[in-house]
Parts: sequence; C-alpha cells; structure tokens
Amino acid sequence: MPLLSLDHARTILDAALKAGMEHTFKPLAVVVLDARGALKAFAAQDGTSLKRGEIARGKADGALALGIGSRAVAKMAAERPTFVAAATHAVGGSLVPAPGGVLILDGGEVVGAVGVSGDLSDNDEICAVAGIEAAGLKAETGA
Amino acid sequence: MPLLSLDHARTILDAALKAGMEHTFKPLAVVVLDARGALKAFAAQDGTSLKRGEIARGKADGALALGIGSRAVAKMAAERPTFVAAATHAVGGSLVPAPGGVLILDGGEVVGAVGVSGDLSDNDEICAVAGIEAAGLKAETGA
Amino acid sequence: MPLLSLDHARTILDAALKAGMEHTFKPLAVVVLDARGALKAFAAQDGTSLKRGEIARGKADGALALGIGSRAVAKMAAERPTFVAAATHAVGGSLVPAPGGVLILDGGEVVGAVGVSGDLSDNDEICAVAGIEAAGLKAETGA
Amino acid sequence: MPLLSLDHARTILDAALKAGMEHTFKPLAVVVLDARGALKAFAAQDGTSLKRGEIARGKADGALALGIGSRAVAKMAAERPTFVAAATHAVGGSLVPAPGGVLILDGGEVVGAVGVSGDLSDNDEICAVAGIEAAGLKAETGA
Repeated sequence: MPLLSLDHARTILDAALKAGMEHTFKPLAVVVLDARGALKAFAAQDGTSLKRGEIARGKADGALALGIGSRAVAKMAAERPTFVAAATHAVGGSLVPAPGGVLILDGGEVVGAVGVSGDLSDNDEICAVAGIEAAGLKAETGA
Repeated sequence: MPLLSLDHARTILDAALKAGMEHTFKPLAVVVLDARGALKAFAAQDGTSLKRGEIARGKADGALALGIGSRAVAKMAAERPTFVAAATHAVGGSLVPAPGGVLILDGGEVVGAVGVSGDLSDNDEICAVAGIEAAGLKAETGA
Repeated sequence: MPLLSLDHARTILDAALKAGMEHTFKPLAVVVLDARGALKAFAAQDGTSLKRGEIARGKADGALALGIGSRAVAKMAAERPTFVAAATHAVGGSLVPAPGGVLILDGGEVVGAVGVSGDLSDNDEICAVAGIEAAGLKAETGA
Repeated sequence: MPLLSLDHARTILDAALKAGMEHTFKPLAVVVLDARGALKAFAAQDGTSLKRGEIARGKADGALALGIGSRAVAKMAAERPTFVAAATHAVGGSLVPAPGGVLILDGGEVVGAVGVSGDLSDNDEICAVAGIEAAGLKAETGA
C-alpha cells in the first residue's frame, strides 16, 4: 500500500470541487486523507460555514476508522444508534455518520478517504466519487 | 488478587486469534486488559481498519468499568440509552455497548477483560470466550 | 472584512510549496486559515511525517490566537515560558511557538494566517512569506 | 509502503522482550505501531506500573508524529523545551521525548515504530533495536 501522492490527492480535490460547481451545489469543504488518516489536501469553497471542514473531515475519518464508506456508517447509526455514538467517543470524536465519506481504493487496498460536506449528503457523495474516479481510483461509498 | 500474568494474557490472545481464523471471521483486533484496566496484550490481524483496536478496547473498558460483560452493557444501552450515553462520558469516552467485551474471572474474582472487534459482535464474542477458556479461566459475557 | 477567498488561499499554498521545492527544503505541510481560524486550503508534500500537518496548523493557530506572527510567539515563549504554556492550554492546545506561522494582512487587517512545517523553522517561514507575497498580500512574521 | 504485518510485529515484540530478560532489565511495556500509528502488537511484562504502556506508546507516537527516533525528540526537548511542549499538545498529548521510541524502516520507508518503557531509557532503546533487527528491518533511534 503506497501512500496517496499529493498529485493524486489534488486531482481528487479539484475534480470534486469541479463536480460541485457543475451541479451548482452549495459551497463545499473537501478533505482528502491518506491511509494513515493524515490530512493530505483540503479546500473550502467561499461561503462555507465555520466548521464545515470539520464535518467533512468527520465523514472521512469515520470511513477510515471503521473501514467502510460513511453511507454504511449512516445505515449502522440508524440501526444501532448507541453503538455508533459509542464508537464516535472511542475513536476520539471525529466520526460523522452521513454519506459523503468515501474510501479510496487502489488495487483492492484502502489508500485513503475523501470527505465532502456542504450540500445534501447525497450530493456531497456525488462529488467525492467524481473526485476519486477522476484520479483513476476506485470509490467505496458504503452503498 | 494477583494481576493477570502475561503468560495467561498471551494464551488468551493467541486462542482468540486462532478461533477467528478457524471460523474464517474477518480480521480481528484483540485486547487483553488486567483488572486495573491496564493494557496487557494486544494484536491486530492484517487488514483491520484504522481504529478497530479502539473499538475492541472500548468493549473491554466498558465491561471492566461497569463490572458486567459488554453484552449486558448493550442490553442496558437498548433499555436505558441516556444512562449509557452519560456513563460513557463519565468514564472518559471508552465504552462500547456491543457484545465482545468479556470479563475474565478466576475463582469468582474479576482479573481482567478481553475485547474483540472486527466481525459481527456475536462472532467477536465467540473468540473472546474461546481465548479465556483456553487459559483455564471463566468467561462472563453478560448474557 | 471580506474572508480570504479560496483563489487567494490556493495562490498562497502553491507559491509556498514552489518556494520549498526551489530551495530543496524537506517535504512541507502548508496550512492556510481564514480570519475565523477555519481551514481554507491545505497540502502535505509526499514524505511528510504523520503529524506534520498538526505542527503547521499549530503555528498558524497560535499566530491568529494572539494576533502576532509565530516568530514573536517563539520569542515570548523564550522570555515568558509559563505564560505561553498557559496560553496554549487556554486556547485549546493548538499553539506552536516557532517561526513559520505568518499572519496575512490586507489593507492593515488580518485576513488569515499561513502555517508551514517540515524543514528548519526559519526555512518554513521563508515559504510562508513567499506564498503570501505571491498573492499580493502582506506577511507579518512576528520579527 | 506495505503495512507492517502482524508476523513482523510479533517477531519484533518477542525479540524486544527477550532482550530485556537477557539483560535482566526491569519489567517492560513494548508497543509496536504500524505506519498509520495504529497499534499492531503490545505486551506488558508482569510487574509494570499502571500507565507504563502509555509511556511506551508516547515514545512510539512521538517518533512517528515527527518522523524521527525519540532520542532525537529528547535532544530537541533539551534544546527547545517550549517547542516540544507545544508539539505535544498539537499532536494530541501522546509524545514522550526520551530514548526508546524507534522508527522501523523497510527499504528506506517508515513502516512503523516501536516504543519501550520500564528500565532506563537507554536500556529501553536497546530492546527496541534488538526487536526490529530480529525482524530483519532497520532501526532508526534518532542518535
């Protein structure tokens, strides 16, 4: 598992932002993490609220923490709310159970995660997937 | 009350991992704590997600914190969710209410706890119990 | 006071990274915050250590927190270490007293801060300043 | 950079413990982290104090956070105490600036870190290095 390169991360970031603008979504914050959970690239479009980036990061952190896309974390939260609340504490607080936290796979291995927040979660996820696919990598949304 | 020995802890750990492999469960993280809540032995199989170990630890920490197996903590969380949410805060955040956090008893005394995470919680618990019994000790799952 | 635009933030980010490469500095993490302390843009070059981004952020957070470049925070830490230690707690933990956290000024007003970490602090600061000046804004290092 | 395998991690752990026993060092806690900073393997010998494992982990976490062996972190702390105190906060609290946190290198890449605590820091480091070399990997102590 090579660490995600900055080139790949910025390709993902730019394509996710571009998708948001093409769909005329609300201003987005886009986080790209490598497999270590370290921040690799980030941008917040003009007009995002004060902690929008933290919401985006929580989607990506939660996906990496549990090894599933955040759409699956959201489903788990609906079915087992106390478990997900507890897991959030156990991992240190950054785990947002809503679509838009998407694992980045390369040859079957998790090499990072993208988190997007700003519009409806389904729309956030569309941008995350567009970003990952623009880099020639595979997106795992948790659907 | 003598503290759990490293020999016992590693017997438990190895037998729990072996049970997981024999059942072809997903990759597991296995935590063994002594009666003080101090980490005694740990292993994460290849392929576990970034924070899988923290989930396993939360099951074992919760069992020791309340003096009951985490299956009973899960039942309590279903019946009294606000109490368990508050208790999680009160103990510092590491308390995961799902099966797989199993008390280790020796002659009626709690000498530690095992936490397992990675597969379905019922399967995680099977491995924790197999580990404890392999060491000739008594498992208390909270069933 | 208009918030720092993403266009400006990315100009700063790219010019800071370019300066690091031209000087053949070690791999850098570069943080750009707006005046609210919200993350606006970020990149970590390939080869940065696990928490390098947190160090960079601490420089920028500290500069904004106290309203002075982090070179002045470093001087304050040398002269009044207990004050800076206490201030670090008071602001929540993210305040790194070393050069490389540089305020961004526009027409005399603070519109954000840049934090750079990866090489010697003096070199980190060179990149932060190069970034800010490339965007036609004024850098306040705390010198 | 492949993730450190459990086989390698346990070879490191066992050889570090064996070195401690051969030198008749005090009881040790030994932590093995992968490149993500995730706990991979751990053991505390009988007789270790309540939070000895946290000290060992702080050495390994600090080495990974900054990308240097903890002997170099200790030197940095002696020369620039306020910077290291601040970095400790910035990375979340787990950073112990004393020898015994040793990076694991494979083909020039950091694939994890070992942390040992229990005896004198110089002795702790001897065990960490012995463990890493027993796995055929390269140890970077920060000397």
